[in-house]
Amino acid sequence: MTDLGKQRVLTGVKPTEAPHIGNYIGAIRPAIELAAQAEDSYLFIADYHALNIIRNAEELKEYTYLIAASWLALGLDAEKTAFYRQSDIPEIFEITTILSAVTPKGLMNRAHAYKAAIDKNKEAGRKGADLDYGINMGLYTYPILMAADILAPRGTLVPVGRDQIQHVEMTRDIAGSFNHLFGDILTLPDFYVQESTGLLPGLDGQKMSKSYGNHIPVFMDSKKRRKLIMKIVTDSKLPEEPKNPDENTIYQLYCHFATETERAEMRSGFEKGGMGYGDAKQLLFEAVERDLEEPSKIYNDLLADKKRIDTLLEKGAEKARETAAATLKDMRHAIGLR
Amino acid sequence: MTDLGKQRVLTGVKPTEAPHIGNYIGAIRPAIELAAQAEDSYLFIADYHALNIIRNAEELKEYTYLIAASWLALGLDAEKTAFYRQSDIPEIFEITTILSAVTPKGLMNRAHAYKAAIDKNKEAGRKGADLDYGINMGLYTYPILMAADILAPRGTLVPVGRDQIQHVEMTRDIAGSFNHLFGDILTLPDFYVQESTGLLPGLDGQKMSKSYGNHIPVFMDSKKRRKLIMKIVTDSKLPEEPKNPDENTIYQLYCHFATETERAEMRSGFEKGGMGYGDAKQLLFEAVERDLEEPSKIYNDLLADKKRIDTLLEKGAEKARETAAATLKDMRHAIGLR
Repeated sequence: MTDLGKQRVLTGVKPTEAPHIGNYIGAIRPAIELAAQAEDSYLFIADYHALNIIRNAEELKEYTYLIAASWLALGLDAEKTAFYRQSDIPEIFEITTILSAVTPKGLMNRAHAYKAAIDKNKEAGRKGADLDYGINMGLYTYPILMAADILAPRGTLVPVGRDQIQHVEMTRDIAGSFNHLFGDILTLPDFYVQESTGLLPGLDGQKMSKSYGNHIPVFMDSKKRRKLIMKIVTDSKLPEEPKNPDENTIYQLYCHFATETERAEMRSGFEKGGMGYGDAKQLLFEAVERDLEEPSKIYNDLLADKKRIDTLLEKGAEKARETAAATLKDMRHAIGLR
Repeated sequence: MTDLGKQRVLTGVKPTEAPHIGNYIGAIRPAIELAAQAEDSYLFIADYHALNIIRNAEELKEYTYLIAASWLALGLDAEKTAFYRQSDIPEIFEITTILSAVTPKGLMNRAHAYKAAIDKNKEAGRKGADLDYGINMGLYTYPILMAADILAPRGTLVPVGRDQIQHVEMTRDIAGSFNHLFGDILTLPDFYVQESTGLLPGLDGQKMSKSYGNHIPVFMDSKKRRKLIMKIVTDSKLPEEPKNPDENTIYQLYCHFATETERAEMRSGFEKGGMGYGDAKQLLFEAVERDLEEPSKIYNDLLADKKRIDTLLEKGAEKARETAAATLKDMRHAIGLR
């Protein structure tokens, strides 16, 4: 296992949707825990990656504040972690330009997101030149921008889900290509697979995802949250019947919010019989409420005072710019610029 | 004809080779004349475009100084024209990142330089994924960087050779796409075709080009220049025979350096007979020497004092950054950044 105490952990979050509890349990909570253990850490709001999707100024602003408030409310320590907007680090874009000159086009052709877009066009019956239909260059080149995101602050460890390992591998390829041509300038990052990512079930028992419409937002009105939890799909077993907790969405979710004792109680209630779905849902609701009560207060306070968010992000940007400027300086010197 | 007095002329020069007299007559001299007539003008050394070719720090530095000294020596007025290194305008790279998000990939697939690289791979028998063999993302995405070069300082008129019209058309397409999504922010440039570009014959009578090895460098030792000019290929007509000046490399070149009277004399000498090739070459040599005597001094002085070049380019960069920063500010505001 990697010695976290010697790592600079780097994470990016795209401000394109409000976090749901699947994001919270699968990504946000582990990332905050990881940041706490690492030597230092950088966490940025990837607003320029979001620009490929969000074409509306107010929406981009809102999602940025909302993501910032969410992470801070859920426990991110902005004293230890440099927390910043990607768009506040201009060095990243010049580094992107430099990296483009050493990135083989063939590498981009293999990127998952691009291949998925091509496959979609194939399914729609498109052929030849039309295979690039609807694909913008932001999507196509995003692995280079992402490489700059990671290489600029010299991140050494990037927490990823299994489907994102490729991002870090491509960053290593691109950095290796630069170093091969111009000397040992860039730090090659490692990836760190967070196994639990994305395993939380949604209301219908499938993986929780906004695109499936089966998600529970982290921050929402209590009454609405209760209503949502009551909608969790179950089978029609009666309260007194024994049930398998391991095939049970309520119990799966409960595990992440309940204490060990509470978990054991619900588990045995299901196994022996006597725990009805309605009661279990109420217990789940109460556990979630308890976990999110304090964060919700902080979240609402932050969103009521966006200047405070700005100030925090500006402070993070200052720290991130220092390292990014040093990296860019080394790169410029190596290629022959002042 | 475009009213030059109301235009902001913008030109980029890639620092990848020393200028030859074909560049001087076909591009540098007309660009300097155009700049003098325009309302204002921007001329930049495209060092990040050169990075796709030059992978050696010393070489990039040398070519940059050499290009800067050449243009200044040949009459560029750095008081009127903002003369700067592309790499000194960081706003250009952030603008490139923004433009990428609104540039369809299909547009890049149609760029001449990319298509030429693909054709070369086809000729070499490559197929499928291998068609992108040896092509880097700097080459593939250069029309976006070039669009940012033009749009950042709000250039309105871009002098081009016929084969470069596409650059300006693509810039218009990309700017139009941004404006369509985010409002009327970017200024769409026009192109200005310099008909004479590249028509100068080289030593062998073909178009003068470094890649054909038939060129006469602008700045070189006089004795070497005389030797080169004496090598101009002619037919074997005797001095007393009449000759057609319009099919004659010596006369073609002479026209660009001689006075009207001198031109008429050589013309009639060829037409009537009595003008031998050796004498004509000597006259050409003397006219070129006369034209380049003063520039050569300035050129050598500048290269002996590179700090002076740096200072001039820094001053130009300051001016260019002002307009680029204003453009970027407008773009950021339109997409939802501060």
